[in-house]
Amino acid sequence: MKIIDVKKLIIKTFKKFNLSEKHSNICANALINAELVGAHSHGIIRLPSYCKRIKKKVINAKPKIKIRNISQSITNIDADNAIGFVGADLGINCAIKNAKKTGLGFVAIKNSGHYGLSGYYAEQAAKKNLFAFCFTNAPPAIAPHGAKKTLFGTNPICFACPSGNKVPFVLDTSMSMINRGKIRRAAKLGKKIPYGFALDKNGKPTNDPAKALKGMQLPIAEFRGSGLAWMVDILSGVFTGSNHGGKVKDPFDDFSGPQNIGHLFIVFKQNLFVKNYSKRIKENISKVKNLPKIKGIKKIYYPGENKAERFKLNKKKEINISLNLLSEINLLNKS
Amino acid sequence: MKIIDVKKLIIKTFKKFNLSEKHSNICANALINAELVGAHSHGIIRLPSYCKRIKKKVINAKPKIKIRNISQSITNIDADNAIGFVGADLGINCAIKNAKKTGLGFVAIKNSGHYGLSGYYAEQAAKKNLFAFCFTNAPPAIAPHGAKKTLFGTNPICFACPSGNKVPFVLDTSMSMINRGKIRRAAKLGKKIPYGFALDKNGKPTNDPAKALKGMQLPIAEFRGSGLAWMVDILSGVFTGSNHGGKVKDPFDDFSGPQNIGHLFIVFKQNLFVKNYSKRIKENISKVKNLPKIKGIKKIYYPGENKAERFKLNKKKEINISLNLLSEINLLNKS
Repeated sequence: MKIIDVKKLIIKTFKKFNLSEKHSNICANALINAELVGAHSHGIIRLPSYCKRIKKKVINAKPKIKIRNISQSITNIDADNAIGFVGADLGINCAIKNAKKTGLGFVAIKNSGHYGLSGYYAEQAAKKNLFAFCFTNAPPAIAPHGAKKTLFGTNPICFACPSGNKVPFVLDTSMSMINRGKIRRAAKLGKKIPYGFALDKNGKPTNDPAKALKGMQLPIAEFRGSGLAWMVDILSGVFTGSNHGGKVKDPFDDFSGPQNIGHLFIVFKQNLFVKNYSKRIKENISKVKNLPKIKGIKKIYYPGENKAERFKLNKKKEINISLNLLSEINLLNKS
Repeated sequence: MKIIDVKKLIIKTFKKFNLSEKHSNICANALINAELVGAHSHGIIRLPSYCKRIKKKVINAKPKIKIRNISQSITNIDADNAIGFVGADLGINCAIKNAKKTGLGFVAIKNSGHYGLSGYYAEQAAKKNLFAFCFTNAPPAIAPHGAKKTLFGTNPICFACPSGNKVPFVLDTSMSMINRGKIRRAAKLGKKIPYGFALDKNGKPTNDPAKALKGMQLPIAEFRGSGLAWMVDILSGVFTGSNHGGKVKDPFDDFSGPQNIGHLFIVFKQNLFVKNYSKRIKENISKVKNLPKIKGIKKIYYPGENKAERFKLNKKKEINISLNLLSEINLLNKS
């Protein structure tokens, strides 16, 4: 299906579920972006679940979002359980505005939901000559180091900064060996996942995505990844006044209440301490890119570069939607 | 040797090498802290190298440090190649002061040097009811993902926050499979390191610490750890106006010039967005600690807890200094 038609379909569907034109548009842009960067697990495949959450009133279609400026740099947003994309969109724009004004933007969003790819928001800041950290927590997926029960989400660390060229440096890396969305997608497509990425509910290694989803994902680098996932839970959940400590509900399996997810966005100007930032970052990146490569590697990519290449390619193509998914969406529009 | 006597010896030695009483004291506190938390690789074993750097004039014993306040939150420090501990001590105190005033402290330090353990500085903020990120870069140790040459330092991610009890949450985790100091210590003690942590200079796996030091350390979680180490290089080096892209000199092997290392400290108030932070963080930590444990695990520790336990134990003991090291230090005091 043509990209513009997919976008229209998403907007039409969200509007059918009572989202405003503006909010539907924000959501569609985020989902289309996920498709175009190749993160299909965060793309249109999730539309039916979002609609179900709205229908079950665990996403608020008509949120009364409250914005409170604590200082010219610091802002607190209560998203009133709006769909995650909307709270995050407002949050990153607010952080960008504050950073442009004072050098620093520091924005906490509470009562929000799953917002898709962190990199999508961080990239928006980096394209405006700003650095950005985006933190968000997620439903239990990773067992803390030493525990045999999941508690932390995949809790990505996301950082972006200008690269001196059109494609920003965007690192968006979950703290699990594999993204939960990829496991979910493997399950949906009937594919296996590699061993060593997850355990079943009894703590045994598994390559079955369904068992992995019921079991535990393994953190990267044992106690290190576990500690980093814990940090993200504290920053996004404890600190912002949102759910934490394993209380975030799974957006696709648990419709018993809102997610109350938190986000923390820290944004700052690239040239706070140096006048020639662009020159410096270009030197840095070219240094790394020009290192001798290991066998079989043709090019060293900086984080975000790979996704940007996929985006460019995919922008010229149509978006592939399975017939199953399409009929599910059509059904939603008839309900 | 008694702790107080080790401290006196360190102060005496640094003063012999022209550091002021105040700066010698700052350095001694940092080195003693490293010994007491059990990070011996960052402790008194490094004293002779620091003295050699001062003697070779690549550490400035009498720095003219410049402090420039960009706003009430943002400060830029040029450490004039002071010993790293001094620049970092000033930086964290400045970040704490700014955060207490405005909620946010954001401090970049350039022309600094190796400052020991990041956690030592972050912990100081956490003990004052503040959150802290401490970033610093380091000499080449890790090969970027896809490259067969080292460029990134072990570049730790360090984060601390109050835990609701006396021992703060302090995560201080290098982006390499093993800390460089531990390899160095293994080499000094004639011990092996585990396979899978490092490659020799030809890219072959090795358990010989001497070969590992000349070769490459492996990043955690492949491209993820590589990306995070890159992020730390950008934040500490490119952004602050310091060396980056593999230009930071090894403090113990390369006396051809100053290190020009950069640090970035981001500090903020625990209660910016919630009134009951202490209650919330206590709940969070107790949730994790009370999870069912895997076989052989008696207790789940939060980051920093283990080190604090060692600190408490070691504070009652003497510090073990090898005769070799002691005679080396005595020689320095006679030179």
